[in-house]
Amino acid sequence: MGKLARKVAMIGAGMSKFGQHFPVKRNPDLWVDAWIDAVKSVDNGIEAKDVDACYVGNFTADLFNHQGHLGPNMANLVGLTPKPAPRFEGACASSGIALRQAILGIASGVHELIAVCGIETMSEVPTTMVTDALAAAADATYEYPAGATFPGLYAAVASAHFHKYGTKPEDLMRVGIKNHENGKENPFAQMQQSIKDIMESKIKRAESQGQQVPYWKDEIDFLSSSANPYIASPLRLFDCSLITDGGACVFLASEELARKFTDTPLWITGTGQGSAALSLHDRDTLTSFIATKEASKQAYSMSGLGPKDMQIAEVHDCFTIAEILAMEDLGFYEKGKAAEAVKNGESRRDGVRPINTSGGLKSKGHPVGATGAAQAVEIFKQMRGRAERNRQVKFDVERALTHNLGGSGGTCVVTIYQK
Amino acid sequence: MGKLARKVAMIGAGMSKFGQHFPVKRNPDLWVDAWIDAVKSVDNGIEAKDVDACYVGNFTADLFNHQGHLGPNMANLVGLTPKPAPRFEGACASSGIALRQAILGIASGVHELIAVCGIETMSEVPTTMVTDALAAAADATYEYPAGATFPGLYAAVASAHFHKYGTKPEDLMRVGIKNHENGKENPFAQMQQSIKDIMESKIKRAESQGQQVPYWKDEIDFLSSSANPYIASPLRLFDCSLITDGGACVFLASEELARKFTDTPLWITGTGQGSAALSLHDRDTLTSFIATKEASKQAYSMSGLGPKDMQIAEVHDCFTIAEILAMEDLGFYEKGKAAEAVKNGESRRDGVRPINTSGGLKSKGHPVGATGAAQAVEIFKQMRGRAERNRQVKFDVERALTHNLGGSGGTCVVTIYQK
Repeated sequence: MGKLARKVAMIGAGMSKFGQHFPVKRNPDLWVDAWIDAVKSVDNGIEAKDVDACYVGNFTADLFNHQGHLGPNMANLVGLTPKPAPRFEGACASSGIALRQAILGIASGVHELIAVCGIETMSEVPTTMVTDALAAAADATYEYPAGATFPGLYAAVASAHFHKYGTKPEDLMRVGIKNHENGKENPFAQMQQSIKDIMESKIKRAESQGQQVPYWKDEIDFLSSSANPYIASPLRLFDCSLITDGGACVFLASEELARKFTDTPLWITGTGQGSAALSLHDRDTLTSFIATKEASKQAYSMSGLGPKDMQIAEVHDCFTIAEILAMEDLGFYEKGKAAEAVKNGESRRDGVRPINTSGGLKSKGHPVGATGAAQAVEIFKQMRGRAERNRQVKFDVERALTHNLGGSGGTCVVTIYQK
Repeated sequence: MGKLARKVAMIGAGMSKFGQHFPVKRNPDLWVDAWIDAVKSVDNGIEAKDVDACYVGNFTADLFNHQGHLGPNMANLVGLTPKPAPRFEGACASSGIALRQAILGIASGVHELIAVCGIETMSEVPTTMVTDALAAAADATYEYPAGATFPGLYAAVASAHFHKYGTKPEDLMRVGIKNHENGKENPFAQMQQSIKDIMESKIKRAESQGQQVPYWKDEIDFLSSSANPYIASPLRLFDCSLITDGGACVFLASEELARKFTDTPLWITGTGQGSAALSLHDRDTLTSFIATKEASKQAYSMSGLGPKDMQIAEVHDCFTIAEILAMEDLGFYEKGKAAEAVKNGESRRDGVRPINTSGGLKSKGHPVGATGAAQAVEIFKQMRGRAERNRQVKFDVERALTHNLGGSGGTCVVTIYQK
């Protein structure tokens, strides 16, 4: 893969509140919320007339809302008709792909300023239908008819990682604990509670209802109890990300135009995308995602940077095991070493390389098609020193990375941001 | 919109046979058929290792096959794992968008050689479900719940055109007659029969079955009879395109690389994309598609050419009225003048500007997500003098255009090709 023919800048980014919004808000409302939040983030202001295309990332409004053809729909809502409005899909990496294609679109010389839209509404349909729709991201020929759902597929990945590297259930729990601590500080997150908060609220509820009060000596003890039921062993409820509605919006611009909107554009210096066979049984290994390795190799090569240069990262923790895999496949840690780093607090927001300061998919929520764009929103905030509450990292972030995964690693998009 | 930062060439293109292939062939098989046909079309040969990405256009395998995340799936089948494999969607313009994004991807400097895949399998589900799935390309908030299907929406467009410009049912029939004459000469077409052939076979069947033998004085008379039932007045059966399974593959390359594969690359000198509100009731007019006007304006401007320069075109005749609209909105004719041009034979393959020499969606077939890429296949053949049977136009084609529409004009992609 070659270099970008011209520089691309991120000049603004915003998002809707993530959560379960149906029936009060649906895709159109959440996208407009995100658009308004992103417009506010642009230093010198921005209007629809400044934007020359709307790149929409969405996994499957077809199945969730019986609405395909989302591009023109989203563009029209914010005054962008009749401008180009393509939709991009790569399961949960859909808006990561939209972001990447917008980078290429600007580098190509054709576009000057693109609004990237990530959008998904999952709570309109019952949970079983959500699981069924999500399964369309896995292989429909072998995996889906066999009853494989995503918790099941990631459980296989976790089991293999446990077997090969000695990873333990507690290692996964620590990922969730950290991400909930971060999500607690994010006013846009779906679950703004730490695992400790959740544990204590359960104790209080038992007390207030006159039931037997459970005793848990710490969060790990709580997460190891029946209060955290198995979804697909070894994955329990708190190893899984959430069913979420949400939208995100990112403004990308050419170098010339970026200066008009802000004195401090953030540069996108690396983009990479990789793919893998959809079926786990077609892969060489379950403990590493080839799509992540390929995407990060391309992005590092383009930016001239390596994993050690990345100061913060938003990674795709659709399940806690996925964060462990990402930390390793992105080259932050050797294979089998990420769990120890989590235990040592290295990925906490006061650690050496904070990961998922937003709360991640685990706590911020995971409106699948919106997640990739929402990761860029967090990077925008952290690099500009605008992260809310107590979530802002304590150092100046000059280099950051986002990692957006589709399905059980069938697609990966990696993006590198620099000041 | 700006210019392409570097030149982009089409170096090969091929397709599967279009038709109803289920259960013998499904998406994977049809894509591999298309890939093999495209590989054969490359003068100096091509292998998977030469290709650095797979750009997949598909409308809704989610609804037709419960398979989203088609990018990595298609890439894997032809040996492109772990390369980037995004999927693009804009209803029936899905692979037109894939083609456009591939053009931008190469111009961006990131990609050198991209395989564009257009794919759709529609015959796996019953016809009523096809109609239902296609309706996801219309507006799901107002149009779909009101029972509006695509024949109904285009019937409204046709009625408005009749009212405003005096267009008549016979004008639409002549579009179908011409396209079937072309499709008869296309070995890849779903219906390789002229309307006359169909009429005569109905007469023969009546004779052989001892039924009353119908008398039709010509094709117009036949198409005006009850043998051509109304689908949504004024549109009859032979005004509608087909339910089709099919795949198409186009290889695009940078200038440097193109020379390695062929001495006669075809250059893509213009690309444009436009959008409109999905709902007809949100439009200013029913007799013109703003998305087509916007897309063609961008493409003409980029190429420095105008409508008069286009020697042949493949336009999106999902319904016969759509070809009339396209001829006008692309600037080939003034509004209200296209029907007369069709009557005069100007768009026949021996006319002044042949349109849909492939047979168009009407006769070649319309596997929705594959159509945009398949249009480029026909242009490749005509420009290289390789159109089969009696379909090759009699002059040297130096400049050509494709017009790919999504939904009832919600998306349009226009591409301009030059020698």
